[in-house]
Amino acid sequence: MSPFKQKEKTAYKTQVARNANMAKFQAAYIFPEIARRRDAHLQKYPDAQVISLGHGDTTEPIPEVITSAMEKRSQALSTLEGYSGYGPAQGEKPLRAAIASTFYDNLGIEEDDIFVSDGAKCDISRLQLVFGSSVTMAVQSPSYPAYVQSSVVMGQTAQYQKDVEKFGNIEYMTCTPENGFFPDLRKVARTDTIFFCSPNNPTGSAATREQLTQLVQFAKDNGSIIVYDSAYAMYMSDDNPRSIFEIPGAKEVAIETSSFSKYAGFTGVRLGWTVVPKQLLFSDGFPVAKDFNRIVCTCFSGASNIAQAGGLACLSPEGIKAMHDVISFYKENAGILAYTFESLGFKVYGGKNAPYVWIHFPGRSSWDVFNEILEKIHVVTIPGIGFGPGGEGFIRVSAFGHRRNVLEASERFKQLYK
Amino acid sequence: MSPFKQKEKTAYKTQVARNANMAKFQAAYIFPEIARRRDAHLQKYPDAQVISLGHGDTTEPIPEVITSAMEKRSQALSTLEGYSGYGPAQGEKPLRAAIASTFYDNLGIEEDDIFVSDGAKCDISRLQLVFGSSVTMAVQSPSYPAYVQSSVVMGQTAQYQKDVEKFGNIEYMTCTPENGFFPDLRKVARTDTIFFCSPNNPTGSAATREQLTQLVQFAKDNGSIIVYDSAYAMYMSDDNPRSIFEIPGAKEVAIETSSFSKYAGFTGVRLGWTVVPKQLLFSDGFPVAKDFNRIVCTCFSGASNIAQAGGLACLSPEGIKAMHDVISFYKENAGILAYTFESLGFKVYGGKNAPYVWIHFPGRSSWDVFNEILEKIHVVTIPGIGFGPGGEGFIRVSAFGHRRNVLEASERFKQLYK
Repeated sequence: MSPFKQKEKTAYKTQVARNANMAKFQAAYIFPEIARRRDAHLQKYPDAQVISLGHGDTTEPIPEVITSAMEKRSQALSTLEGYSGYGPAQGEKPLRAAIASTFYDNLGIEEDDIFVSDGAKCDISRLQLVFGSSVTMAVQSPSYPAYVQSSVVMGQTAQYQKDVEKFGNIEYMTCTPENGFFPDLRKVARTDTIFFCSPNNPTGSAATREQLTQLVQFAKDNGSIIVYDSAYAMYMSDDNPRSIFEIPGAKEVAIETSSFSKYAGFTGVRLGWTVVPKQLLFSDGFPVAKDFNRIVCTCFSGASNIAQAGGLACLSPEGIKAMHDVISFYKENAGILAYTFESLGFKVYGGKNAPYVWIHFPGRSSWDVFNEILEKIHVVTIPGIGFGPGGEGFIRVSAFGHRRNVLEASERFKQLYK
Repeated sequence: MSPFKQKEKTAYKTQVARNANMAKFQAAYIFPEIARRRDAHLQKYPDAQVISLGHGDTTEPIPEVITSAMEKRSQALSTLEGYSGYGPAQGEKPLRAAIASTFYDNLGIEEDDIFVSDGAKCDISRLQLVFGSSVTMAVQSPSYPAYVQSSVVMGQTAQYQKDVEKFGNIEYMTCTPENGFFPDLRKVARTDTIFFCSPNNPTGSAATREQLTQLVQFAKDNGSIIVYDSAYAMYMSDDNPRSIFEIPGAKEVAIETSSFSKYAGFTGVRLGWTVVPKQLLFSDGFPVAKDFNRIVCTCFSGASNIAQAGGLACLSPEGIKAMHDVISFYKENAGILAYTFESLGFKVYGGKNAPYVWIHFPGRSSWDVFNEILEKIHVVTIPGIGFGPGGEGFIRVSAFGHRRNVLEASERFKQLYK
């Protein structure tokens, strides 16, 4: 008997069955796979100067006007006057008010429609808890993987179908250059929820006012709820809507989630928010916001009070200016990367309304392109397939990086694809 | 037609059905009810000096050795060298290592068994996501409401049964003075999970080594998973186990969740952890830790890096001493309150191993006692029924409060019950 079998035989197992939803994940988890390949690459080339333009992680310092507010709040917590314990799970009142007035002024969104959170990803899961396992969902393909993953966790999906690289029971809305990265809604089946990210991660495409008006009408015709992820809205260059609530009637069919992560470099500080308008009702007339509030109170205890102090500083006039400066820096990076690939003859998308550049390698497997770039020039990107089947044939290059790394990566891309 | 009916008729409703699990909550949500009664009381007596010994919210400043670490980390985030973006969702390595060595030294718990979080309540929900909707659960009655609430959210329970004040499909393990606040396990039905809080919130009772050995054996016999909440372990005066992992064999049947909230006044800063030993396996041999890791990566992005810097300072020698000082202060409060009620002739439990005093009012409705205390002496407590049917006839008085408030409340209790 092999030692492995011996161990197999003796290891105690509980009698608790593994959650079938968790078992569905298996083959489709891209980020650890990227990390695995990166680590293997570093083992193979220990002296390589690897540049990471993969995972969209901010790299530039947080402006001092913001960190000094967090310092002050930290210090205040050591004083009798400045100490605070549990805050409202929905967020501190001044921050909720500042989010409402900064991002939703004149849109009819009120302070109590805003739920402050520890980030949009976390709120997406909490929203799925509200919806439960019986709803059906539609999602842009490609898009941020958390929408589909949280749906799998909740048991909304069927098994993963390896041949088409899709989970069963999800409506994938393909977004390609051919349809201008906006789905042909005539071909989209009715679902209970529609997850829609604009500006889109990874394509960088921002929906126009006309397209969003179509989307809201589509949701209204179908009685669907849109979960609109606007985490990159401040990166927009054109004058299309920054919020779904700019579209008349959206408050009756949409939730919006957003984040300070990419605006203020808060990926590690953790702060976001979700807007659930009180006008949004389930089919029995019960307000969605009431159930979301219940989930927030039951499964969450509010974002860190220090992070919230930082968020409030972000929304001061100086904070807003500082955030725009950081965003401009990353957008210049995006411009450099987009120009590099364009000058090499690639079809390049994104970069103008989002910190991501989406590059077409027609007919090629995105994993092959990923491997080629990593192997030959030591740059980590993300294969488009990681964002859903609609991403095949593309890679995403992130504009988050120090300028020297972005310039160096550009030089290497020029060497590789000249 | 009344204006209400007109509004009914015209309000747009989506066609998304409300999640049936959310609808189960209805009648059984105690904390907003307490807040509602407190607000009504303040309206009735606008000049009353209400003292809150209800919600267990810390009141004393965070020791400077801890806040100064958070200040420094905040400041560092504004520098190129000190900036960090996304950290590991499982927590920063030095903090995981410090938690392992501080709380689990020589218990065979390793750094990678520790998952840092934004609080035990949040981790309880994430654990329920791991388990899914098909498991059955047992819970101490009385106990912290988040266990049952998160089970309801996940759809593990049947409807709420108003007559017995229980959710269907949950095994309530009654803990009373008669059984020394430890359930008679011969009468407990087999369930997949067993939520066990020791020192218990609200009773303040800490299980003995012998009792915990029984509990682990019970779990092993039944193939159950214990979720052990040790959030008050540092409050223990006696020498019973601080961790379930002090019991031989526990790593094969138990998860432990804990928190900095009540040790360092981090209720607003948000920091906790959960230990999922790699030896804990589902019935098919799949490690529970792998699925928990997946949930942490999918539904969470890590605790705030500033809070984690605070946590690391908590576990320095100076930090540990400072935490013990704060804990001693609250325990003195608990002693004052326990002595007050004892001297008035009440049977009083808790207070020695936890910051809660659990007072018996035999034969009385705990809501009636709550109302009496609020109405007559303007002190907010918590009616025991809020922690489950096993809490009827008791009220919980929290020892979190400034000393002058605790002394004043004691005087008022003496007036009321002399």
